[in-house]
Amino acid sequence: MALPNPDPTAYGSGGALAGDVLGAYLRTQAVAFLRALRLHAEAAGSAPAGGAAAADAAEAARGLRGAARRIAGSLAAFRAVTDTAWADCLRGELAWLSAVLAEEHATAALPARLLDALHRLSGSPERPGGPAGGPATGTGGLAAGPARAAALLERQLAPARTRAHAAALQAMGSSRFHAVADAVAVLASEVPLDPAAARGPAADVLLPQAERVRARLAAAVAALPPPAQAPPYDTGQDGSWQEVRHLLRLHRYAREALGEDVAPLAAAGGVLARHGDAAEAAAASAAAARTPRITPATAYALGVLHADQRHEAQSARRAFHRIWHPAPAPA
Amino acid sequence: MALPNPDPTAYGSGGALAGDVLGAYLRTQAVAFLRALRLHAEAAGSAPAGGAAAADAAEAARGLRGAARRIAGSLAAFRAVTDTAWADCLRGELAWLSAVLAEEHATAALPARLLDALHRLSGSPERPGGPAGGPATGTGGLAAGPARAAALLERQLAPARTRAHAAALQAMGSSRFHAVADAVAVLASEVPLDPAAARGPAADVLLPQAERVRARLAAAVAALPPPAQAPPYDTGQDGSWQEVRHLLRLHRYAREALGEDVAPLAAAGGVLARHGDAAEAAAASAAAARTPRITPATAYALGVLHADQRHEAQSARRAFHRIWHPAPAPA
Repeated sequence: MALPNPDPTAYGSGGALAGDVLGAYLRTQAVAFLRALRLHAEAAGSAPAGGAAAADAAEAARGLRGAARRIAGSLAAFRAVTDTAWADCLRGELAWLSAVLAEEHATAALPARLLDALHRLSGSPERPGGPAGGPATGTGGLAAGPARAAALLERQLAPARTRAHAAALQAMGSSRFHAVADAVAVLASEVPLDPAAARGPAADVLLPQAERVRARLAAAVAALPPPAQAPPYDTGQDGSWQEVRHLLRLHRYAREALGEDVAPLAAAGGVLARHGDAAEAAAASAAAARTPRITPATAYALGVLHADQRHEAQSARRAFHRIWHPAPAPA
Repeated sequence: MALPNPDPTAYGSGGALAGDVLGAYLRTQAVAFLRALRLHAEAAGSAPAGGAAAADAAEAARGLRGAARRIAGSLAAFRAVTDTAWADCLRGELAWLSAVLAEEHATAALPARLLDALHRLSGSPERPGGPAGGPATGTGGLAAGPARAAALLERQLAPARTRAHAAALQAMGSSRFHAVADAVAVLASEVPLDPAAARGPAADVLLPQAERVRARLAAAVAALPPPAQAPPYDTGQDGSWQEVRHLLRLHRYAREALGEDVAPLAAAGGVLARHGDAAEAAAASAAAARTPRITPATAYALGVLHADQRHEAQSARRAFHRIWHPAPAPA
């Protein structure tokens, strides 16, 4: 996907004022935030907390996270159009909230991803134990490896998951959270803007600011090692990829605020999310393999798992480059 | 690549006679066989047998193998044009010889492939020990894993390699081999053909026979699981892939005998060779991990190696399907 050059006529705002465009986006996201908050409270309140309620709560938390990121992102991208003291403060609080929610999500998703992959790698239709597990040959075999590796990973990752879940519950019961929710509730009806900037045409005021985000993203993508040099997967680059993921999100929300179609950006973001999840899973399986006194069969299964997730991360890197630098169309 | 429908005007033989076309091909391959045999004897005779001499001998053996396969393959595809009693006998002897040489090659290539992959997987520029090895954390760490896995694999695979090398040397000094070489020497000047069939036009006589090879290959490819269903790598399919590789070779040599450009077939064959090598390496690393009393770090490195080679085999399968069933050209 080429980073589209801004076309002042391309987005829905037409000749609209900057304050109207940004205000409408922020109000929409504030409403989405409040709705997700209500769903989250309902899911948490439904006793006993079964699987369905947990899934509802996770879905509501996802909605909260998305709205919080969009509000914070558009406040960052279009800071000059806002009442900056207010915007900086709300943005900081939303960053805190979405970090807490993201940690809860990530610590739940990581073991699920690892156990799924172990299951996939050890299951083979015509050969029980599968090629990863190897045939069961008594105590010297590898068949018990995947099950033991799964138990080990669950044991090692459960505390972080429990901690993050408790932290999220505590955060959402805190006065700090209630203050954020109140601020977002105000935002749903009234957006504190810079009066002068808000009266300018959206094309003159918002587009140059969205452009700065676009330029930062383009620079971060250009700083990634080119795909041809990428083959040996290298965890040392995870930071650069993390940065691209962050900037792509900012870019996407800024373009969304301008009313553009961001489906291609969302697809690229999905690939980066897959990259991040796989890189984290690869690191977790390597870490588990460093546990003292595990059996060779467990270590072998963790090695298979590590390499599988590393390949997944590597394949996500290639997929991102393919999306971002598509091959020239045939003449 | 679509399997090309035979076009009687497409190959160089034009209105040539079947016996002339097949005879020219067989004579060319016989000369190549004798040349490779001379190079092999020179490399074996150069003392002391250093790395360069070994490389020369390997290259010469490769030439012998290729010529033996081409002669045997074209005798099989165009059997009806030959003196069949003679052809069947020579074909059997060449199959014996190329199996011995192939075993020597495979048992030498397998440990080399595995050690290269271990090196690649454990080497990472900014993090000694690398993501596969993990940081060195004393005896509980994984850093020693790749080195120990390499030593284990070398130990386990060396006997087969030595055995196959000795068997190849012995075979090439045997009276059986000398009889084959004599038969090929005769072939270089005079090809025993079926007089009636050899006088027919190549397009009428050879093409229908090449077509039968093509049809067998097409059926074997069609029997492969479609790529969409392929994702979980499944060693149970290795046999079907082996069969496709064998038939692709036959098809390629038959087309080569007809004077066609077989570069695309050679490329597809290269992908299948990569598949076979990777599948064998994946199996060897799983087998090594079943060795009793290895350390967890060794087992972990073998697990990483196994998964890496499995991915390589899987990627070769996808690459073959892409070559063989290309996406429709954009309008």
